[in-house]
Amino acid sequence: MTNLLPGKGLKNKLLVREVGPRDGFQAEKTPIPTELKIAVINRLGATGLSHIQAGAFVHPEKVPQMADSATVFANIKRQPSVTYSALVLNQKGAQRALDAGADAIETGLSISNTHSLNNTGRTSAEALEEVRRTARLVRQSQTPLWLNIQCAFGCAHEGAVEARAVGEMAKALLELMPDWLCLADTTGMADPVLLNRLLDEVLPIADSTPLLLHFHDTRGLGLVNVFAALQRGVFGFDSSIGGLGGCPFVPGATGNIASEDLLNLLQALGLVQKSTVFAVADVSRFLAKALNRPLPGKVCNLPEE
Amino acid sequence: MTNLLPGKGLKNKLLVREVGPRDGFQAEKTPIPTELKIAVINRLGATGLSHIQAGAFVHPEKVPQMADSATVFANIKRQPSVTYSALVLNQKGAQRALDAGADAIETGLSISNTHSLNNTGRTSAEALEEVRRTARLVRQSQTPLWLNIQCAFGCAHEGAVEARAVGEMAKALLELMPDWLCLADTTGMADPVLLNRLLDEVLPIADSTPLLLHFHDTRGLGLVNVFAALQRGVFGFDSSIGGLGGCPFVPGATGNIASEDLLNLLQALGLVQKSTVFAVADVSRFLAKALNRPLPGKVCNLPEE
Repeated sequence: MTNLLPGKGLKNKLLVREVGPRDGFQAEKTPIPTELKIAVINRLGATGLSHIQAGAFVHPEKVPQMADSATVFANIKRQPSVTYSALVLNQKGAQRALDAGADAIETGLSISNTHSLNNTGRTSAEALEEVRRTARLVRQSQTPLWLNIQCAFGCAHEGAVEARAVGEMAKALLELMPDWLCLADTTGMADPVLLNRLLDEVLPIADSTPLLLHFHDTRGLGLVNVFAALQRGVFGFDSSIGGLGGCPFVPGATGNIASEDLLNLLQALGLVQKSTVFAVADVSRFLAKALNRPLPGKVCNLPEE
Repeated sequence: MTNLLPGKGLKNKLLVREVGPRDGFQAEKTPIPTELKIAVINRLGATGLSHIQAGAFVHPEKVPQMADSATVFANIKRQPSVTYSALVLNQKGAQRALDAGADAIETGLSISNTHSLNNTGRTSAEALEEVRRTARLVRQSQTPLWLNIQCAFGCAHEGAVEARAVGEMAKALLELMPDWLCLADTTGMADPVLLNRLLDEVLPIADSTPLLLHFHDTRGLGLVNVFAALQRGVFGFDSSIGGLGGCPFVPGATGNIASEDLLNLLQALGLVQKSTVFAVADVSRFLAKALNRPLPGKVCNLPEE
């Protein structure tokens, strides 16, 4: 039979980072009770997933939905096999995240100046300086560091993004020796052609630093991009339970790819266990019930198997 | 750059068959007015699509939604560049479709006995006999003939389906010299591994008869399967405007892959024009307004570009 995926060791290198508790909840218009956040993270910790983005340490007035991240970190039931990471935008946030006991720190910048200014009030170049300072702090604490480039596949404001520019930014971030480098399709503009063009730039310089890809399913291409990435030997993906993270008021407008849909694809390819797919879909159904609305994912909306 | 697709001539061989007006409307619980069917088909005819499944000639009491197909065929504004096909289940239906002026006749059978009995009251073997008789009639009229195998990727009742069994049934159908052979994932069970296994069986015997694949997006793998199929040189796909065809009362439970989402992928791969994507998405939005509910597709729910 035709070999769909390269390499044999893929299964061991596979990484699925669950971003629902941060990226997903942050997109919710109404406040999510801290208890629900903790309950969801605890349930996710028991599914077999190895990485959960459990909160963000950012300005509490700008992102009130994440203002309780320290309380969340203090009260979740930690599974020894699970890495609970936190997103930060600067040194101060990193220190708060470390104090709260985050197992890994994620930070980064947007390759789009417009997006960077809108999001953080800094240009991409200024953000890079802050990433350098933050990385130094995280490194001192010997905590794993994840760096990401937002808008790596295009920007809703600026349009197309040059793969070469992303490659140069990747080079600058790789000098900081991250444990993972994440390329994020912040606005759902990636497709297999753009992805391959970007990987042509970044894979040769990433060397042994593994890549993590963050896709949105805005145009239904999220899992197609995952499949195309696996074919290039990239094996790290962000996803969100139930596809949480889209605008909750636009039906079908999903945000992140749904974790259980991603896992279902990976299961079909022989890379994860069926039991993990079911367990994660169960958490999505629990969350859908708690939010009192259906989530945009596919597998979680099927009759239970 | 990495070559994503085999061959150069793919663009010329590409076929997207719009099945919304038959497969999609047939799944609707409330009757669709004949005028709306005609309006949708007329709009689809102006988008650049080359094939539209415009109706079915089946038992009007069993499938009342399709009882007006002759009226639809009589009143649509035909575009010379478009093939308007009809689905039939037997000789009698084929004769009615030919009398109504269908440009191509589609018929077939289910590889699953249980599904075949439920759907037509015949075993797969009996259905094959009827397909033979129907094919003879269609051939006599020199009308293009499309044959399909339902449940080719699995059956909700019978579970897994052997690729070898599908290969044998494909062989029997190929003896009838169809213009296209369609493998249908009737219940959304296909994945890239099953697909490649099936193509390993069918491609060698299909020879110059082109294959058409019919995917459902039940588990979010519809476009992944399309991408994997393109990589094997298969270039014919069914799709439905807005992803029509799922149960309208289960959010996220889509039926067929959405035409504009499929076209958007094909556009990214350089195989279709952007204008066609936009034009088809416009028809989906028109239909969503007429049905007074959002359709499950992604691209049609984006802000208009």
